[in-house]
Amino acid sequence: MEEKPLILVTNDDSYRAPGIRALIEAVKPFGEVVVVAPDKPQSGMGHAITVGNILRLSKIDAFEGIEAYACTGTPVDCVKLAITDVLKRRPALLVSGINHGANHSINVLYSGTMSAAVEGAMEGIPSIGFSLCAFEWEASMEEAITYARKIVAAALRGEFPPKLCLNVNFPKSSHVPYAGIKICRQAEAYWADSYEKRQDPMGGHYYWLTGMFEGRDKGTDTDVWAIENNYVSVVPVQFDMTAHHAIAHLNTWQYD
Amino acid sequence: MEEKPLILVTNDDSYRAPGIRALIEAVKPFGEVVVVAPDKPQSGMGHAITVGNILRLSKIDAFEGIEAYACTGTPVDCVKLAITDVLKRRPALLVSGINHGANHSINVLYSGTMSAAVEGAMEGIPSIGFSLCAFEWEASMEEAITYARKIVAAALRGEFPPKLCLNVNFPKSSHVPYAGIKICRQAEAYWADSYEKRQDPMGGHYYWLTGMFEGRDKGTDTDVWAIENNYVSVVPVQFDMTAHHAIAHLNTWQYD
Repeated sequence: MEEKPLILVTNDDSYRAPGIRALIEAVKPFGEVVVVAPDKPQSGMGHAITVGNILRLSKIDAFEGIEAYACTGTPVDCVKLAITDVLKRRPALLVSGINHGANHSINVLYSGTMSAAVEGAMEGIPSIGFSLCAFEWEASMEEAITYARKIVAAALRGEFPPKLCLNVNFPKSSHVPYAGIKICRQAEAYWADSYEKRQDPMGGHYYWLTGMFEGRDKGTDTDVWAIENNYVSVVPVQFDMTAHHAIAHLNTWQYD
Repeated sequence: MEEKPLILVTNDDSYRAPGIRALIEAVKPFGEVVVVAPDKPQSGMGHAITVGNILRLSKIDAFEGIEAYACTGTPVDCVKLAITDVLKRRPALLVSGINHGANHSINVLYSGTMSAAVEGAMEGIPSIGFSLCAFEWEASMEEAITYARKIVAAALRGEFPPKLCLNVNFPKSSHVPYAGIKICRQAEAYWADSYEKRQDPMGGHYYWLTGMFEGRDKGTDTDVWAIENNYVSVVPVQFDMTAHHAIAHLNTWQYD
């Protein structure tokens, strides 16, 4: 009998989030699922790893019939520890999410959900990060599950391109079915940050990050456009960050 | 009288690291320097930001004659808070480092030093991350300071390309002068991770990340090659992570 494909599931909202439960439901029909996820929310952790401190891993009984572990570290720590110390064979697929909140455009850099998928790609594992453009933990994920299954089926069937992962964003769930899937590029965008300065009860000052998202890209081939038009966006994400087009220009600089 | 260019200095090793002192020394001749740096080591924090917690900022008197602040957050937090709440005008340049330890190849993704520079690029500020390929806090930075000045002078003189920052790595300091500057691409490489599993005094288990770096790239146009051949490597780094070349292939997949 052929072995079922091994599927590693992680996220950044912690194993307690409804989104990871939805993702497990989505991928369960495709293989043997193992979960290694953060034990607390790790949103905005980007590609952070734990280098000056220890990690702990606890077996948990959170998902019926599914082998699962909570890890004290970041999403990228979860992926590394899963591969080296938890999984008994090489996973055929890594899925991360479903994140509560969008990870389109430049948010790919801040997102722990997506960094877990990027780490999977660095390990040579077909990897997909999924995010829903709604923060509420009560948001319906039914349509997202349907489309996650379409994408996972295609990823397991097609030839997964090397050295990259997929960034999938689902439009905010609603009573309107999604319009389909669009392969996109990451939109140009900007966070107009501001900090709210407050006084603590002892008279000291502290700051809370707030910010306004500014879409700056009028292209119809972007993830932001796709989501706004009720499509599921799929962006191939690479970990070569070299701006190859700029090398020639930098060679014209005088350095003395 | 013309205003001197404003230069924002940050790092990920904290304001106490010798590397940031060396970088301040390197850039002081070029303008007015303001430092906003982490109050504790933030290595490996990647592009993490603080979203579920508060930040604090303290004026410090660590560098003679230099306006400086310690921030409780990550390197990217330092950049955001500097721009929104500390600097009174727009910086002409952001420099990050000098990191104690290499940030070549895929390490650009894990590096807090480089993520600060990437954040500067996202803000439209000419930004450069500097790293020395030696971990020791006692490592000589004299040759690195000389070359940092060459690169900063060129960056302020030349037309800094939009939507990217520079990743500069200095060979381990030695008695041999550097061979020059090479504009490079990020080398393909891999971390063969392993975790050392230990028992705590209470009988519980915990893990320490260890790992072996594997250069997998034989190219002579990479940062790893340059450093190994005693050149200062300069890689242009972009924050568009789209794998544009893969979009056509993904459009051939069947999603139903």
